[in-house]
Amino acid sequence: MATTTLSPRRVRFKDAHIEMAHGAGGTASRRLVEGLIVPLLGGLDAGGRTLDDAALVAVNGQNIAITTDSFVVRPLRFPGGSIGELAVNGTVNDLAVSGAKAVALVATFVIEAGLPTSVLEGEVAAMADAAARAGVTIVGGDTKVVEHGKADGLYITTTGIGSPMQNATLHARRVRTGDRVIVSGPIGDHGITILLARGDLDLEADLRSDTRSVLPFVEALVAAAGPGVRWMRDPTRGGVATSLNELARDTGLCVDISEESVPVNDAVRGACELLGLDPLHIANEGQVIAIVASDAAESAVQAMRAVPGGEHATIVGVIREQPAAAVMATTRYGATRIIDMLVGDPLPRIC
Amino acid sequence: MATTTLSPRRVRFKDAHIEMAHGAGGTASRRLVEGLIVPLLGGLDAGGRTLDDAALVAVNGQNIAITTDSFVVRPLRFPGGSIGELAVNGTVNDLAVSGAKAVALVATFVIEAGLPTSVLEGEVAAMADAAARAGVTIVGGDTKVVEHGKADGLYITTTGIGSPMQNATLHARRVRTGDRVIVSGPIGDHGITILLARGDLDLEADLRSDTRSVLPFVEALVAAAGPGVRWMRDPTRGGVATSLNELARDTGLCVDISEESVPVNDAVRGACELLGLDPLHIANEGQVIAIVASDAAESAVQAMRAVPGGEHATIVGVIREQPAAAVMATTRYGATRIIDMLVGDPLPRIC
Repeated sequence: MATTTLSPRRVRFKDAHIEMAHGAGGTASRRLVEGLIVPLLGGLDAGGRTLDDAALVAVNGQNIAITTDSFVVRPLRFPGGSIGELAVNGTVNDLAVSGAKAVALVATFVIEAGLPTSVLEGEVAAMADAAARAGVTIVGGDTKVVEHGKADGLYITTTGIGSPMQNATLHARRVRTGDRVIVSGPIGDHGITILLARGDLDLEADLRSDTRSVLPFVEALVAAAGPGVRWMRDPTRGGVATSLNELARDTGLCVDISEESVPVNDAVRGACELLGLDPLHIANEGQVIAIVASDAAESAVQAMRAVPGGEHATIVGVIREQPAAAVMATTRYGATRIIDMLVGDPLPRIC
Repeated sequence: MATTTLSPRRVRFKDAHIEMAHGAGGTASRRLVEGLIVPLLGGLDAGGRTLDDAALVAVNGQNIAITTDSFVVRPLRFPGGSIGELAVNGTVNDLAVSGAKAVALVATFVIEAGLPTSVLEGEVAAMADAAARAGVTIVGGDTKVVEHGKADGLYITTTGIGSPMQNATLHARRVRTGDRVIVSGPIGDHGITILLARGDLDLEADLRSDTRSVLPFVEALVAAAGPGVRWMRDPTRGGVATSLNELARDTGLCVDISEESVPVNDAVRGACELLGLDPLHIANEGQVIAIVASDAAESAVQAMRAVPGGEHATIVGVIREQPAAAVMATTRYGATRIIDMLVGDPLPRIC
């Protein structure tokens, strides 16, 4: 049975107010979570991790994976998906990249009074469809209503519990120099789709969110590479750059990616150039980054390519010793640059 | 492993918009949940229940209890508690009255931009304290920030997983005529405290929310009465009347309570008289209603009275055959009245 093992309460977060950037998934979010929430709440889970994407909990001696996320995406519907679909897939995916298969979800709705019932019905139906596609059951929930003007239509929170896969042992401490960095497909589609869907910019593009369950990618990877799969993430808020920076920091190693090998759709590349954004910082909702042992990397990529939607899976980089704890990108001309975590919040409320 | 078993999608909920009453826990909430959400989402859990307070999920052949709630109480702090404390206790309690002991919680925060960090810090600390008191670990979470004006300071969602108690088999179908209705203590303190804390009324009272973990009550009940404990609820939104009406409906039996035997603090009684409210409709956050076999009821009450805070536990009624599916109150003068579920929303956002 669990016991409470609170850390000493040393709150280091000194910002006087919470701002949008604290929810964007980049450096400000990390300062808030690591400087305030973890010091006050954070015990270690059964896997020795602290407030990670998914936690392991021992219930009657058996490890269960659990993860939770609130979804506040604006607009509620966008090309390729909607908040309800995102809320199911996002939680299924947090479990999947932690090496667990979702068994059941629960969901809560915070609804703004005045929301047309048809909007709620559409999102509940989208959740049911996404759950059916992901092979997971929604077993419980809660509904709250707040006054008009006290929410933004609808916020959905989902929590998933999952069963750890037998042959997946994923942890940053298993990453070694020489391991390869694999991306499942083109990056940035979700974030740019949301940005364009808001209509604030005079831009149009033939682009859809990539929201989907990434469990098929994860299962293919683990089947092909087994213990050669070291670590995985689904690069949502803060994008690939933020996930890889977390890896570099946690391992003390260098993640060296070849910029040209990272798949990016033309519409995303074009929008990013116009807006001064880096596709590596843009959120994805249906991609996986995996670190795989070099001798298993090619078979892992082939296995992912055999999964529908994984046709563009590719090796984009390698783990090196130096420079320590950094993410580097090498351009096609041989120049290198440091890739930082997302700073600020260029794209609020993308999930 | 779970499979998705969706019911036919017959949506019967016809209201055009979502209104405050749909979140109040009474009849409008039930119409929304049973008329829209359950038809679209609702599979049965491993215990044969549909979207109940807590669900049972089989993970690798072992039953895990899970429950989730969003908290949108206004104001964030009130005499006797705060949103953070409520968010921990409410989820621990939903598990407890389902016959499960909470093992771990996860939590999400939806924060309105501009919230003073001191407010957030106070609530995270309140959650840590409540979790320590309830003997549960918070193992994960998520933080989202929405623009100023798009939330109301802070919304917290908690999800708990728990281990079913070995000797607690709770289900409405186990309730029999002659069983006794037990209440753990004075009702209505939480709801009236919140109402007064808003300061909209020119009323003052020496009253505090009863927010706390009810697990000690539940453990005492189960230890004293074992399988004699048939059914339990923590009567939150909609109060004792709503919980008992759900029981009457689910069993087809009559819940007959003696109005005079229901413990109510003077301040709650006075405020209710002034405002035309019935204490039976007011929310509690630290009380339990239990249906216990008649031969075990007295020892169950004695066991609850031995728990700090349970000194006023008492038998308030009995289960009868007729009138079918109704809750009746008998006054001290022998008159009887039908007690309905909460209709409308006299007290919005109390949890």
